[in-house]
Amino acid sequence: MDGHSITMLGTGLIGDFYTNTLHSQRGRDRVRMVYSRSPERGAAFRDRWAIPESTTDLAAAVNHPETDVVVIGLPNFLHEEAISLVAAAGKAVLCTKPLGRTAEEARRMLETVEKAGVFAGYLEDLCYTPKSLKAVASVRAGAIGDVTWVRSRETHPGPHSAWFWDGRLTGGGAIVDLGCHCIEIIRNFVGKGNRPLEVLCHTDTLVHPIADEDNAVALIQFESGAIGQFEVSWTFRGGMDLRDEVAGTHGTIWMNHFLRTGFEMFTTGGGSGYIAEKAETSAGWLFPVGDEVSELGYVDMFSDMFRAIDEGRAPQETFYDGYVVNAIMDAAYRSAKARAWEPVELEWRGGSTPRIASTPELYERQVVIKREVLPDGRQKLILKDPTSGDFSDRVIEAG
Amino acid sequence: MDGHSITMLGTGLIGDFYTNTLHSQRGRDRVRMVYSRSPERGAAFRDRWAIPESTTDLAAAVNHPETDVVVIGLPNFLHEEAISLVAAAGKAVLCTKPLGRTAEEARRMLETVEKAGVFAGYLEDLCYTPKSLKAVASVRAGAIGDVTWVRSRETHPGPHSAWFWDGRLTGGGAIVDLGCHCIEIIRNFVGKGNRPLEVLCHTDTLVHPIADEDNAVALIQFESGAIGQFEVSWTFRGGMDLRDEVAGTHGTIWMNHFLRTGFEMFTTGGGSGYIAEKAETSAGWLFPVGDEVSELGYVDMFSDMFRAIDEGRAPQETFYDGYVVNAIMDAAYRSAKARAWEPVELEWRGGSTPRIASTPELYERQVVIKREVLPDGRQKLILKDPTSGDFSDRVIEAG
Amino acid sequence: MDGHSITMLGTGLIGDFYTNTLHSQRGRDRVRMVYSRSPERGAAFRDRWAIPESTTDLAAAVNHPETDVVVIGLPNFLHEEAISLVAAAGKAVLCTKPLGRTAEEARRMLETVEKAGVFAGYLEDLCYTPKSLKAVASVRAGAIGDVTWVRSRETHPGPHSAWFWDGRLTGGGAIVDLGCHCIEIIRNFVGKGNRPLEVLCHTDTLVHPIADEDNAVALIQFESGAIGQFEVSWTFRGGMDLRDEVAGTHGTIWMNHFLRTGFEMFTTGGGSGYIAEKAETSAGWLFPVGDEVSELGYVDMFSDMFRAIDEGRAPQETFYDGYVVNAIMDAAYRSAKARAWEPVELEWRGGSTPRIASTPELYERQVVIKREVLPDGRQKLILKDPTSGDFSDRVIEAG
Amino acid sequence: MDGHSITMLGTGLIGDFYTNTLHSQRGRDRVRMVYSRSPERGAAFRDRWAIPESTTDLAAAVNHPETDVVVIGLPNFLHEEAISLVAAAGKAVLCTKPLGRTAEEARRMLETVEKAGVFAGYLEDLCYTPKSLKAVASVRAGAIGDVTWVRSRETHPGPHSAWFWDGRLTGGGAIVDLGCHCIEIIRNFVGKGNRPLEVLCHTDTLVHPIADEDNAVALIQFESGAIGQFEVSWTFRGGMDLRDEVAGTHGTIWMNHFLRTGFEMFTTGGGSGYIAEKAETSAGWLFPVGDEVSELGYVDMFSDMFRAIDEGRAPQETFYDGYVVNAIMDAAYRSAKARAWEPVELEWRGGSTPRIASTPELYERQVVIKREVLPDGRQKLILKDPTSGDFSDRVIEAG
Repeated sequence: MDGHSITMLGTGLIGDFYTNTLHSQRGRDRVRMVYSRSPERGAAFRDRWAIPESTTDLAAAVNHPETDVVVIGLPNFLHEEAISLVAAAGKAVLCTKPLGRTAEEARRMLETVEKAGVFAGYLEDLCYTPKSLKAVASVRAGAIGDVTWVRSRETHPGPHSAWFWDGRLTGGGAIVDLGCHCIEIIRNFVGKGNRPLEVLCHTDTLVHPIADEDNAVALIQFESGAIGQFEVSWTFRGGMDLRDEVAGTHGTIWMNHFLRTGFEMFTTGGGSGYIAEKAETSAGWLFPVGDEVSELGYVDMFSDMFRAIDEGRAPQETFYDGYVVNAIMDAAYRSAKARAWEPVELEWRGGSTPRIASTPELYERQVVIKREVLPDGRQKLILKDPTSGDFSDRVIEAG
Repeated sequence: MDGHSITMLGTGLIGDFYTNTLHSQRGRDRVRMVYSRSPERGAAFRDRWAIPESTTDLAAAVNHPETDVVVIGLPNFLHEEAISLVAAAGKAVLCTKPLGRTAEEARRMLETVEKAGVFAGYLEDLCYTPKSLKAVASVRAGAIGDVTWVRSRETHPGPHSAWFWDGRLTGGGAIVDLGCHCIEIIRNFVGKGNRPLEVLCHTDTLVHPIADEDNAVALIQFESGAIGQFEVSWTFRGGMDLRDEVAGTHGTIWMNHFLRTGFEMFTTGGGSGYIAEKAETSAGWLFPVGDEVSELGYVDMFSDMFRAIDEGRAPQETFYDGYVVNAIMDAAYRSAKARAWEPVELEWRGGSTPRIASTPELYERQVVIKREVLPDGRQKLILKDPTSGDFSDRVIEAG
Repeated sequence: MDGHSITMLGTGLIGDFYTNTLHSQRGRDRVRMVYSRSPERGAAFRDRWAIPESTTDLAAAVNHPETDVVVIGLPNFLHEEAISLVAAAGKAVLCTKPLGRTAEEARRMLETVEKAGVFAGYLEDLCYTPKSLKAVASVRAGAIGDVTWVRSRETHPGPHSAWFWDGRLTGGGAIVDLGCHCIEIIRNFVGKGNRPLEVLCHTDTLVHPIADEDNAVALIQFESGAIGQFEVSWTFRGGMDLRDEVAGTHGTIWMNHFLRTGFEMFTTGGGSGYIAEKAETSAGWLFPVGDEVSELGYVDMFSDMFRAIDEGRAPQETFYDGYVVNAIMDAAYRSAKARAWEPVELEWRGGSTPRIASTPELYERQVVIKREVLPDGRQKLILKDPTSGDFSDRVIEAG
Repeated sequence: MDGHSITMLGTGLIGDFYTNTLHSQRGRDRVRMVYSRSPERGAAFRDRWAIPESTTDLAAAVNHPETDVVVIGLPNFLHEEAISLVAAAGKAVLCTKPLGRTAEEARRMLETVEKAGVFAGYLEDLCYTPKSLKAVASVRAGAIGDVTWVRSRETHPGPHSAWFWDGRLTGGGAIVDLGCHCIEIIRNFVGKGNRPLEVLCHTDTLVHPIADEDNAVALIQFESGAIGQFEVSWTFRGGMDLRDEVAGTHGTIWMNHFLRTGFEMFTTGGGSGYIAEKAETSAGWLFPVGDEVSELGYVDMFSDMFRAIDEGRAPQETFYDGYVVNAIMDAAYRSAKARAWEPVELEWRGGSTPRIASTPELYERQVVIKREVLPDGRQKLILKDPTSGDFSDRVIEAG
């Protein structure tokens, strides 16, 4: 049962989540070395998670002789440099979301790892939440028919660290921070081979005194006809709202990953301690989650990554996926500026997906628009005359 | 305690809902005469609701000597003729939604009633749901600060009557049927004096073999900067989904009017009978509502209408509101065609609304982007240097 | 459309709820006179609800020449005197819950109205919530098979008025205040002709420095074998929790009447005003209800009462029902003292109800304990050998 | 990162759950050998979970030279024999719930492992659900004040295997199957050092043609005054209902572990496959859970067990806990028979717990029963005169 020995780059909130996940339960993989730009934060992180070593030397961290996997939990503008170092070291690299600040940057990172021939995983945790994994499997098994519309929503009152707010370092605002999650969730439901064609996006800065968007909504048109809709905000009040809704021709899926998961607590405020990520209050009605790293997908994400390394296969989320996400975000920003639909520009590796289509049912040479079962068991048909275009009702016996 | 004597025009589902509401509980208003294009449906309706008379003569119904109020529950393409007759008769007129098929048609109806000087109410029930009324009052009282975004969603598997599916008779598809509700709900939350400037809309026909849209999503830009977002569908599976979500600078409101209201039933299917509007199944887990006409706003809507008549004041929802809704829907259809934002063209009677704005807080000459309370009681500030545009964190003592 | 003219006795919270209901929407019944022990509270109530007159003279209020119905919203210890006066006046009397402090007192009031031959209604609002009415109708229609267990729960942080806390004036603690609701809800679901045989009850005073119980749980054994379970508390934190759960042989019903009804609001606390009965906070996550008097059953309750008067029939909830409730509460107190089951002592007017029973299905001369459908469509039977008493599994083809 | 090598005894549903958990994610512990009474079931299980060996020889399985931990997933009547074998082998033993069929049997097993000096863990998964672990931690941190009442509910339509239905093999019915979970959940919330004194229980066989109870409800009186209430049923319709509710003097916790966890799916039935444990339907509205073995506590349970072995400490759930649970169940059965409270007879190793008590607050020499904040900021006090016992209201300024 040999595990992996890991170099962790970065000691922010995401580094904590990653290491907490890796070191939790009966995991066999361990962080061996941690890199931080600050010696103090590095030492504190090392002690907090019982890691043997910390350093402020990025190259030394990447090239640590005992580690075979490097996890990148650094701010967006530092991904490219780190990935180049890891590729040069010939180690497996797992990079946090978003992959790049732009599709162009992401494409370069993709080329780097492909040239080097190293394993590269895209750490998109929210595609791995237990609910999402089961829901995607149900969709694949046909439980809701053809997917027509996927809504993914991620909102909270704004990030905890300063660099998130600086578009020069991140590539944008709430879309780059949160929309990247939503886009990849949507792709998992409509199918990764389903080409994203165009994007229609609106962005606005409604509350915070910043240059980048603190609210955005966008539509993605896929080749099958399915629509992906994402909603992101840094101005939501009440905690962190993570919901996905999938509509199909024969069913519906609703998932709430965080703020309403069957755990409710009222307190007059006597206790203390951490409630949940982005929680706004510590008294009144609170809505914790059970096991945060499990509910947010970190556990299943790392299992997939390390198993993929062990099995010599690609993980569910690859650098190519990260590149597609960046390409869609680029189109979103262009659309918001153009105030109109904009094409998604990307080097497409997926195949072609046919249009959602059904041969309309006929009844006595009329097109059946809808069937309803009446309380007495008979059926009501709504019919369209293909010649005149007129609509009519008809009640018929069952069968 | 004198009530009103009513002529009801139309005997479809909406006529049943209206009359059920008027004749329920201890109401003092009664339907005296009902008009139907079909004598059989008219007679059945008359008997079902214990109404003294039915007729197939529209003018006779409107001019019945004992009624003082006429309620229009007819298909869209018959509204204008009916309103003209009622205006000529000098009676109060209450017209179902949408007012017209286009803003131009709605404007003519508005002129008709204004010239005749008759009371005219727009029967927009979903603006009167008990939850909406209380939520709007909370918003007015400042409970969530400035409204930034309102999402209103109405979806179900498609209408019950044939004429709904014929865009020639209705003016469109799911937008005209359902979007009109959402638009007016949104206006109640952002404020009716808040001018709708532009609309961005996407429509698609994903499932039904019809010419008009069975799915649509749109954004409405209001003068204050607030965004209204509506989502409508005739392809939703699982019942009828009516949800409104309001985001403000200091709070959030979530309302579920139909499918998740605290009433859940599992049945192996032994019972029988009506479950709820647009319910799809009669076995398994079902989600009825308690008092449907109350939860859907009909009770409060008619109370407001008849009180407004008695008190000589305008009701909450007027023909002018109906006209604004049509103008926004027209812009939505133009936008969907143009694939870009389109202006709302209307004769604006509201005033001007200032932009949502707050003077940014300063801390030692830096702009405060966000304040977070840490577990130990201290505060973490995210600051922006107004000169360099750089962001930084600062932890300070509380106070 | 003639309504009724009412004398209202009492100006506490319940008087407000009653009058608010009667004067709301398009109701045709009006309070004509209000009685209060305090002239100030009487005058304030009169002005609040636009009532023509108030008085401190109980007999004058009851005998007001223009009223034909008297509503009693007085503390428990004043019910008997008021009912005697109304009966002597020959008017219809509607009395709030609980009818008496003991079954003996309730029996005397029942005799008083029966001797006088006046209409007497028991104002048990929670049996009339829209959800309950629809759920009871579903149960009657067979939707969940035979009722096996009914749980009714009513808890909050304690009453608002001093007299509620004084067992000498009320007859007890949380059972008398809240359990009376639960018992009658349970009776509506198991059937009012289903005789309550025995009660097992536990009471405790866990938080408040009072002599009576602030927490209780009880089981009621009905003749059919069905169990009623009620849970009441004056120490619940977080608002008012009103839930009913009904288990049947073929289904389940869950109802939440107050704290989770599809209306959720987060506020940082900027707004103001009344949130909901027994709400504990005005910031953070709040859970208002839409139309409180409708959701709590007051609207349907008064509709039934006044219609029953108009139609010369008994209402759904009668003084006899109030007497049965008191008899069950008496048994509960005796059981809590005896720490064992105690019989319900009452003059039973209902009939006899057969035991819930089903003839066990047989499969090859074995008793079928359970059938499960396997994923492959086959069925798994759990069988019991009637001779040996041994259990075994068997997988068979469907059909 | 060395893990443990395990002998698994039993190949039923629980063996699947256990092995699924152990072999999932990045776990470092592996099942090395599986024992089944049936060679076919053993081989199938072995192949399903990629286990090296299976056997029908219990002693050989226990004494496998490479395993150091034995997990018992056998029917209740086989626990004692298996535990004796493992103790003799000197290996760590982890036994499924309930430990014994009676307290006497459980006490013997406890003695066996204590005499042998082997590690012994009680596999009570539902005490380890992520929500429960976080909730217990919140309670310990004081978030809800003193615990006053804990309700734990576990119900479903009945077990999948024949032996569960045979009280001779299990020790009883739904209490032995499900109540054992609830009792230990309750103990975790009230504190394990809080002695259970007495039990009041009602059992009934309402639906299934069996000799043991298919429904039961019970109260457990703890030394602190706290009440534990458990509700179990084998006749619930709609899936598996797992809910825990904790009431405290300053707060409330509600947990739903299974049927309402923020994952909702509607399907017309086209798909296929496993939905969730005890699910009753595969069409209509379904409520899956995300990661079943995580949500049901198996992951955290095994982590605690193996860490405890590695660290040489006791696990959270020990054989002594299993013995206490049996003692409480024995008292429940005695109480149901006696129809009255019965003492819990057990060898108590915990200490003594003081009665929940608070010194009543005084205001001008009167006892404060309740404080309410009024909308205008003033406070309303309900006071009790300690001499007369009379209650009164008083409104005072805040502060």
